[in-house]
Amino acid sequence: MTLRHSRTITAVQAPIIPVVAEWTKNTPNTLSLGQGMVFYSPPEQALAAIRDFGQRPEEHQYSAALGDKRLLDLLAEKLRSENQINSADYQIMVTAGANMAFLNVLLAITDPDDEIILPSPYYFNQEMAIRMLNCKPVAVPTDCRYQLKLDAIEAAITEKTRAIVTVSPNNPSGAVYSEDDLRAVNTLCRERDLYHICDEAYEYFVYGSAKHFSPASLPSASSHTISLYSLSKAYGFASWRVGYVVFPKELLPALLKVQDTNLICPPLICQQAAIGALNVGSSYCKTQLQRLLGIREQVIKRLQDVRDHIDFVATEGAFYFLLKLHTQRSDLDVVKTLIQDYQVSAIPGCAFGLTDGCYLRLSYAMLDNTRADQAMTRLITGIKHITAF
Amino acid sequence: MTLRHSRTITAVQAPIIPVVAEWTKNTPNTLSLGQGMVFYSPPEQALAAIRDFGQRPEEHQYSAALGDKRLLDLLAEKLRSENQINSADYQIMVTAGANMAFLNVLLAITDPDDEIILPSPYYFNQEMAIRMLNCKPVAVPTDCRYQLKLDAIEAAITEKTRAIVTVSPNNPSGAVYSEDDLRAVNTLCRERDLYHICDEAYEYFVYGSAKHFSPASLPSASSHTISLYSLSKAYGFASWRVGYVVFPKELLPALLKVQDTNLICPPLICQQAAIGALNVGSSYCKTQLQRLLGIREQVIKRLQDVRDHIDFVATEGAFYFLLKLHTQRSDLDVVKTLIQDYQVSAIPGCAFGLTDGCYLRLSYAMLDNTRADQAMTRLITGIKHITAF
Repeated sequence: MTLRHSRTITAVQAPIIPVVAEWTKNTPNTLSLGQGMVFYSPPEQALAAIRDFGQRPEEHQYSAALGDKRLLDLLAEKLRSENQINSADYQIMVTAGANMAFLNVLLAITDPDDEIILPSPYYFNQEMAIRMLNCKPVAVPTDCRYQLKLDAIEAAITEKTRAIVTVSPNNPSGAVYSEDDLRAVNTLCRERDLYHICDEAYEYFVYGSAKHFSPASLPSASSHTISLYSLSKAYGFASWRVGYVVFPKELLPALLKVQDTNLICPPLICQQAAIGALNVGSSYCKTQLQRLLGIREQVIKRLQDVRDHIDFVATEGAFYFLLKLHTQRSDLDVVKTLIQDYQVSAIPGCAFGLTDGCYLRLSYAMLDNTRADQAMTRLITGIKHITAF
Repeated sequence: MTLRHSRTITAVQAPIIPVVAEWTKNTPNTLSLGQGMVFYSPPEQALAAIRDFGQRPEEHQYSAALGDKRLLDLLAEKLRSENQINSADYQIMVTAGANMAFLNVLLAITDPDDEIILPSPYYFNQEMAIRMLNCKPVAVPTDCRYQLKLDAIEAAITEKTRAIVTVSPNNPSGAVYSEDDLRAVNTLCRERDLYHICDEAYEYFVYGSAKHFSPASLPSASSHTISLYSLSKAYGFASWRVGYVVFPKELLPALLKVQDTNLICPPLICQQAAIGALNVGSSYCKTQLQRLLGIREQVIKRLQDVRDHIDFVATEGAFYFLLKLHTQRSDLDVVKTLIQDYQVSAIPGCAFGLTDGCYLRLSYAMLDNTRADQAMTRLITGIKHITAF
């Protein structure tokens, strides 16, 4: 038999993390500068909050589609005090992670062949989601410091454009966009009848002079601004799958249809743990950041050793750096070599749409100081050899 | 500003459960024969299994995309011993509920404008998922006992058909399809290069002479048969969002792309609870079924009181009955009246594509004997009044 393949899914890139993980499997002592995950676990209050979960029958039943009211109230207060977002102007929906939030939003606002503008390098799962729904990702390159090129974004708008996505702090570049630039994008979207999708999963991860800004806090934003958040990074919550989306009220009927068809309701025990985490609040993440800051400085310092072998911008957000290696070799090939010959992994740039050279994304949040230092030694040795040819 | 609405999502029906819930809110003593949910909580072993969850850092990190290996092993053994499915012929993927499994499958196998054959009445979330992806649900009516009409299904196949869906035991009709009919559909799919999507969420809920059959157990099924399962009903697991899909190996790359873009990985704590539940096994559900059987017989007996007012088939599966009321009034209007004037709720048939008369779906699994009896008294009083006009 010959079952026809879906053209749509065939055109979607394969997830890169499992590919790199597969290569790593055969070199078991590999240190990972790959996956975007933090080294710390959730606050103990998250586990304390679920200690008695399940004693009441209703805790096992379908719960509210938008999320548990106690969690929604905590999120509204967090949005007010930290993001300057008046949640009364928006709706909040809890999802099983921010990837799902992005996919759900696309399902709610797009038709096939619509275009979504993604500043590039982009976050691969967003490009995948867009293609998966038969929309077209329109990649608009950022500048040499991975900052937005507003003119280029405006020039990319067509009749088919539905939304402009900004990820700040950025995955994969680590760039933090300025308030001015984010305001400009938000105004552009308003003027051109587009949604502004603001991915703020890394909101707490800013360093130096960088400041996080939430476009949904702008007074004229509430009709067209969609903000995405995640507990995975801030609270070490990756396995719990808790994210949320803050969106214009007009989209409520559409997003309720999507939630009902995809998740029905977010898993209640995970929401209960999230309540515990949010009761501690972002001070938890900020304490962890002190350690991350040290690792970050160490990584920057070590990269000076190969400054003639790579192009590198010390961006001020998330926990990523992009390196452009001075080599003709392909990024996939280089990552394979780094794993097999140097026992250190990174993510190849092609996954993020970087095809004009050999790029690697380093994630420096998963290792402790000692192991980060060891990983950097391996990486630098590898880069020196690889770029020598 | 005038943000263009998505034609796609606009064409999707609004979820019916929240609509009925909203009507119910204003009549607080309403007894629900509405939502498809069971009266019992999970086995205590499910909660015991998570008692120490979260002590190890890796329990908070992203986990395997397909699901935790210990859970997958338990599911493979369950499929072998209960469904006669050789899991070595398939792949298994854990999802956050069987709705997500269905949506993920559509994302993996369809292109826009593809057709999916749904015997009708259909499960509303499946029709919604199909429309949400710009595919066309092709509703093929079942017979007067809600059994499959094989000729009509075959006649509905076109060049654009990608799959035939069978839900057995059925939501909303309660019909259990015979092994012969399911074999015939599976063979038809094989011969015509279509997928056979088998929704078996209610596999344990069969009564009288009905027997559950899993088409994926057929020797020639493994290249084209996709089976969907849920823990929500069997183990009282609705809030935990755990389902799984068993699918041809050839679809693995496609489904990994979808999982990565939607959920990344199933919430680990929910999988851990599922391990606890599966270690108890389906005997748990079968014990609960004894009580459900009593309620079912009581409901059938009470419906005799209105046998001149309704058409009704005592189907032998799930925990649903469809009633066709002898009235010219719309089903939505009747459900509203039942809630407001008689304090009992049911789901209107229109949600399931039943538009040739006034249908109601009764769900009899949520109430204990006493309250079920009280709900039936209210329903019968209501039906007598409503059908008198």
